[in-house]
Amino acid sequence: MFVKKVDVTTHHHDELLDITHLVQIAVAESGITSGRVQLFVPHTTAAVTINENADPDVPRDILLGLQHISPVLSQYRHGEGNSHAHIKSSLIGCSEEVLVQDGALLLGTWQGIWFCEFDGPRSRRLIISVMQG
Amino acid sequence: MFVKKVDVTTHHHDELLDITHLVQIAVAESGITSGRVQLFVPHTTAAVTINENADPDVPRDILLGLQHISPVLSQYRHGEGNSHAHIKSSLIGCSEEVLVQDGALLLGTWQGIWFCEFDGPRSRRLIISVMQG
Amino acid sequence: MFVKKVDVTTHHHDELLDITHLVQIAVAESGITSGRVQLFVPHTTAAVTINENADPDVPRDILLGLQHISPVLSQYRHGEGNSHAHIKSSLIGCSEEVLVQDGALLLGTWQGIWFCEFDGPRSRRLIISVMQG
Repeated sequence: MFVKKVDVTTHHHDELLDITHLVQIAVAESGITSGRVQLFVPHTTAAVTINENADPDVPRDILLGLQHISPVLSQYRHGEGNSHAHIKSSLIGCSEEVLVQDGALLLGTWQGIWFCEFDGPRSRRLIISVMQG
Repeated sequence: MFVKKVDVTTHHHDELLDITHLVQIAVAESGITSGRVQLFVPHTTAAVTINENADPDVPRDILLGLQHISPVLSQYRHGEGNSHAHIKSSLIGCSEEVLVQDGALLLGTWQGIWFCEFDGPRSRRLIISVMQG
Repeated sequence: MFVKKVDVTTHHHDELLDITHLVQIAVAESGITSGRVQLFVPHTTAAVTINENADPDVPRDILLGLQHISPVLSQYRHGEGNSHAHIKSSLIGCSEEVLVQDGALLLGTWQGIWFCEFDGPRSRRLIISVMQG
């Protein structure tokens, strides 16, 4: 198993960052050409998802939709005021797993991998692990 | 690792298709009796989930609930008009992983595996990978 | 592969139960010090998620937010009246996967693993599988 911890810097409160190339680089560095790569976000107000990375309006609309789905509610008690971001993190999820074949990610034509910031801007981490087999 | 790409045809705009048997067939074909099977949807307006496959009203209600959760918003900009479907895809997620023991899927009594179409009808693909160990 | 089935008892209709220690115990019992652990919930109105386990208001707010996101809708037809719970199960997801390094879970500082009950109280099961590599 090859494990790489990558620093990710976000610049907005809510942001979708295309990290597909970071994952491709880690897979190349691992030397593993057949297996799987897991992306893990070790944070509770961030996430990782796979979605279209062609039209920049897609990530923009996803963030807008998530604000509609998980708004700030007056009944929340958590003192940091970011319960809506914790909920987005659990809705989207903190990990993804993609197949590796012939050294390449087995993604669909329109799929890219996105780091999801819901309580930024911040310095974040991403754990990329590549497994043979 | 055994990898099989399966064609899935959907017939409605929103649809939950029970694909449990397709996964069972692929596991049998793989010859792997102990390990794990991953389901991966290489699309950005579809998904895969595990939920009840006894009462047909459950998938019907899930689709209805998701329309309530991620409706079409007038503020969306993505030109294809399917941003609400992209959001459903990220909420439900494009992969699932199930244990294989003694050649069988280790699912709960009421669990089935569902291909989720959110922007159909279309010809879709499902990638099934079975890993030993 | 080491597989352990754990009984989980919930005490409320909606509840987030911190199961991080159960996962740590299973990893120790497996004797596997490097690899991955998968948590799988074999139910259709429950789930598993990773989120903050420091402030008890976070799980309380997550449950409140999920009730807002997936309320009981009058249009639901499923006779058991728990379609909103089935939807929460698919939104959060029935599995999580965490890396194991030097015998420890590779979680972030604030991350814990939560069993999510959306239709309790009930006797539930959790399947913990640990894989080397």
